[in-house]
Amino acid sequence: MQFELSGTYIDELRELIELKKIDSIKEQLNELYPADIAQILNRLKDSEAAYLYELLDDETAPQVLLELDEEKREDLLATFSTKEIAEQLDNMDSDDAADLIAELPENIQDEVLSQIEDIEQASDIAELINYEEGTAGSLMAKELVSVYSFETVTACIDEIRRQTDNVDVMYAVYVVDDNQKLIGMLSLKKLIVSHPLARVEEIYDADVQFVKTNTSTEDVAEIMQRYDLVVLPVVDQLGRLIGRITIDDVVDVIKEAAEENIQRMSGISDDVDSNDKLWRLSRARIPWLLVGMCGGILGSRIIGTYEEQIKIHPEMAFFIPLIGAMGGNVGVQSSAIIVQALANNTIINDRIAPKLIKELGVGFVNGIICSVLIMAYAYVIEDWKLSATVSLALFTVILCASFLGTFVPLTMNKFKINPALATGPFVTTLNDIIGISIYFLVGRLLYGVF
Amino acid sequence: MQFELSGTYIDELRELIELKKIDSIKEQLNELYPADIAQILNRLKDSEAAYLYELLDDETAPQVLLELDEEKREDLLATFSTKEIAEQLDNMDSDDAADLIAELPENIQDEVLSQIEDIEQASDIAELINYEEGTAGSLMAKELVSVYSFETVTACIDEIRRQTDNVDVMYAVYVVDDNQKLIGMLSLKKLIVSHPLARVEEIYDADVQFVKTNTSTEDVAEIMQRYDLVVLPVVDQLGRLIGRITIDDVVDVIKEAAEENIQRMSGISDDVDSNDKLWRLSRARIPWLLVGMCGGILGSRIIGTYEEQIKIHPEMAFFIPLIGAMGGNVGVQSSAIIVQALANNTIINDRIAPKLIKELGVGFVNGIICSVLIMAYAYVIEDWKLSATVSLALFTVILCASFLGTFVPLTMNKFKINPALATGPFVTTLNDIIGISIYFLVGRLLYGVF
Repeated sequence: MQFELSGTYIDELRELIELKKIDSIKEQLNELYPADIAQILNRLKDSEAAYLYELLDDETAPQVLLELDEEKREDLLATFSTKEIAEQLDNMDSDDAADLIAELPENIQDEVLSQIEDIEQASDIAELINYEEGTAGSLMAKELVSVYSFETVTACIDEIRRQTDNVDVMYAVYVVDDNQKLIGMLSLKKLIVSHPLARVEEIYDADVQFVKTNTSTEDVAEIMQRYDLVVLPVVDQLGRLIGRITIDDVVDVIKEAAEENIQRMSGISDDVDSNDKLWRLSRARIPWLLVGMCGGILGSRIIGTYEEQIKIHPEMAFFIPLIGAMGGNVGVQSSAIIVQALANNTIINDRIAPKLIKELGVGFVNGIICSVLIMAYAYVIEDWKLSATVSLALFTVILCASFLGTFVPLTMNKFKINPALATGPFVTTLNDIIGISIYFLVGRLLYGVF
Repeated sequence: MQFELSGTYIDELRELIELKKIDSIKEQLNELYPADIAQILNRLKDSEAAYLYELLDDETAPQVLLELDEEKREDLLATFSTKEIAEQLDNMDSDDAADLIAELPENIQDEVLSQIEDIEQASDIAELINYEEGTAGSLMAKELVSVYSFETVTACIDEIRRQTDNVDVMYAVYVVDDNQKLIGMLSLKKLIVSHPLARVEEIYDADVQFVKTNTSTEDVAEIMQRYDLVVLPVVDQLGRLIGRITIDDVVDVIKEAAEENIQRMSGISDDVDSNDKLWRLSRARIPWLLVGMCGGILGSRIIGTYEEQIKIHPEMAFFIPLIGAMGGNVGVQSSAIIVQALANNTIINDRIAPKLIKELGVGFVNGIICSVLIMAYAYVIEDWKLSATVSLALFTVILCASFLGTFVPLTMNKFKINPALATGPFVTTLNDIIGISIYFLVGRLLYGVF
C-alpha cells in the first residue's frame, strides 16, 4: 500500500502530461498522499511540475508545496503571483506558512502577507517570522487549544469544537490562568474519560514540560526525546502560553542535525543535498580540500628536510602512506565516539579526564597490536632498522592520534564550535602531518644511532 | 526547569547515599522525571545505583529501568530475583517489557515470564518476543483501543474508559470489522467533537496508513516521517489489527540508524558507546585498522617497485602524503553525499547514471582548481617536471576518487550492504592505493619521456 517511486512511473506520468490526459492524471494523484505527490514533482521538469500542481485541489496543493525540495519549491513559486502564494499560505499551519514566507525574496514577503485573507493567520505568521532561526519560536505553531482552570469539561469540548478547523492535529489541551500563563495540561484521553461537569482544575496535570521562545532547537529536541513527548508548549518570557511544537518538526531537526554532522565529518562545509546544483556541491567541498592541500604541502616540506636521508635509504619512503593513513583512521575513530557522546549528552562537562584516559587506553591496546604486526612484517621484508622505525613510529602515531581525536572535539565543544568539524579532514590532516614528523624523526634517531 | 546533570550534583548525591539520608534523597528524586533519574544512576557505582533504585516508587522504578544504559541495566537486574524482575515488567508497556526480557539471560527468561501476575501482559510479552529484531513486530506494543464500526461514540468512550489503565498514551482509536481486520481510524479529536449517538461508521477515517509485522523498522520510520504520523497500526498477514507503533520508538530508530552510519563511516565495526568497557571499544575498532594496515603495506609494495627512481629523484617522495590524503578526502566527500541520499530515499534505483555524472562533474571542477594551485606551488618550489607530475596525478586521483566514492556505496546498496561501510576506511584505503599508483606511474612517464 505504500507508494514506491520508480523511473518507469515518472516516464508514464510524463507521457500523460504530454498528452494532457487530465482525468487520468487526476485519478492517479487522488490515490496519493501529499508527500508522495511532492516526490514526483521533485523529479519532473519545472513546466511539468507547474502543470501538475495546477491540477491539485485546494487542500492538497499547500501540503504538496511544503513537502517539495527547497530548490523545486523556489522554482515553482517563482511562477506564482503574490496573490496565489497568499492563497497557499492561508491553508497551511502557521509554522509551515512562516517557514515558507521566510524562503521568499524579501521584497515580496510583505506583499504576500498583506494579501492573506484570514487576518488571524496573517498576524500569526507575521509574529512567527520574527523569531530567530534555531530557536523554539522558529519551530512553533500558533494553533492550539487553551482553557481556563475554572471551566468544565463540557466547555473544553465546545472550545475544541470551535477550534477544530484551525488545529489539524491535537493531542492535548493547555490550561492557563487569567493572565494566559501556562499552568498545566489535559490530555484528550483524560478529557474523554472525565465527567462532563468536572472542572478542569480538578482533573488537569500541573506537571507539564514547556520551553521558552528562545530555547534552542537542539534543547527542544533533547527534551522531547528524553521525556517522550509528542507536543511541547512554548511560553514567552512572562510564562504566557503562545505556541506549541509538534514531534514531526522535531524529527526533522534530529535528522538535519545528524546529516549536518555527517557532512561536517566528511569535509563538506555547507548543507547540501545530492539534488543541488553542481556549482553548489563543488563550492561546499572545496574549502576542506584546500585545507587538505595545505596539509599535504606542509607534509612535503617536512619530508623535504629529509631529502638526503631518502637518497641513502629510499625504503623510508615506502611506509609514508601507512603512517599517514593509520594516524588518520585512529583519529577519526576516536573523534567519532566523542562527537556521538557529546550529541547524546553522555559526557558531563566537568568530567573530561576519564574520557581522555579511556581513549588513550584504547589507543594503547590497538597501538600494541598494530605495531607488533607491522614490526614482524617489516623485519621479514626489509631489515630490523626499518622494522623498528616503522613500528615505533606507528605506535607513537596511534597514541597521539587517539589523544588528538579525543581532545580536539572536546575542546571545540567547549568553545561552542560544532565538534563534528574536528572529525574529518581536520583531524586527518593534523594526524597526517604529525605522523610523518614522528616517522622521520624516529627514523633519523634510529638510523643515526646505530 | 529542565534538569541538568553535573559532576557536583553527583558528588552531593553520593554523600547523601553514604550517610543514608533517605528522606533528603527521596525528596530530590521526587522532583525528577524517570529519564533524569536514569541519567544519574548511569553515573553511580552499582551498589549506589541499586540503593537508589530501591527508594523509587512502584510506578517510577520500571520507567527508570527502561531509560538506563544497557550495561547499567544489566548490572542492576543481575542483583534482582526473577520475581522482582517480573514485578517491574508488569508495570511497563508490553513493547518495553518485551525488549527488556530479550536482554535477560536466556535461561531465566521463561521463569520471569511465568512469574508475571497479569496473565494478559504475560501473553502479550510472550507474543512480542517472537518477532524478529528489525521488524515492525519488534517495535510494536499490544496496548491499543479498537472499536467496531457499528458502535456509537458513547460506546467508544466507554471502551476507552475501560482500557484507560492499560494504554498510557493514546492518540487514536482503531476501527475493525467482525474479523478484527483494520478498516480505519478515529482521532480522539474527532471522537470528542462528534455527537455521542453518532455511529463510528459515519465518522471514521477509512484512509489509514498501516504496516505488517514483518515490515522493516527502516520502512516504519520512513512512513511515519513521510506522513507525519505519531502512531502507526500494525496488522498481521491477514490484515487483522494486532498492535501499534508510537513515534518515540521510531525517533530512537532514526537516531540509532544515524549513529550507526556515523560509526561505520568512521571505521568502527560494532555499535559502541563511549561508556562501554575498554576492551569492547578496542575490539570494535581493530578490524578497520587492520584493513588500513593492509592497505598501507600494499602501498609500500607499490612504492617499493620505484625504489631506484626515488634514489635519483627523492623529491618524488615529498608529495606522497598529499596525493594520498586528497584521494581519501574527495572519496569521503562523494560517498557521504551518496550515503545521505540513499538514507533519504532521494535516489531512484533505476536512475544511477545521473548521480555518477554529477559527482564526476564536481570532481572535475574541484580537480581543476586543486591541480592548478598545486602546479603553481610545485613549479615555484621545485621544477616543472615534478610540478607537472603532481598536478596531473592529483587531477586524475580526484576524478578517480569521485567516481569510486559514488560507485562503491551505490553498488553496496544494490547488494544490500550498508553503504556507510564504504564511506570511511574502505574508500580512503582504496583511494590511497590508487592515488599512489597513479602518482608514480605519471612520474615514471614524465621523468622517462623528458
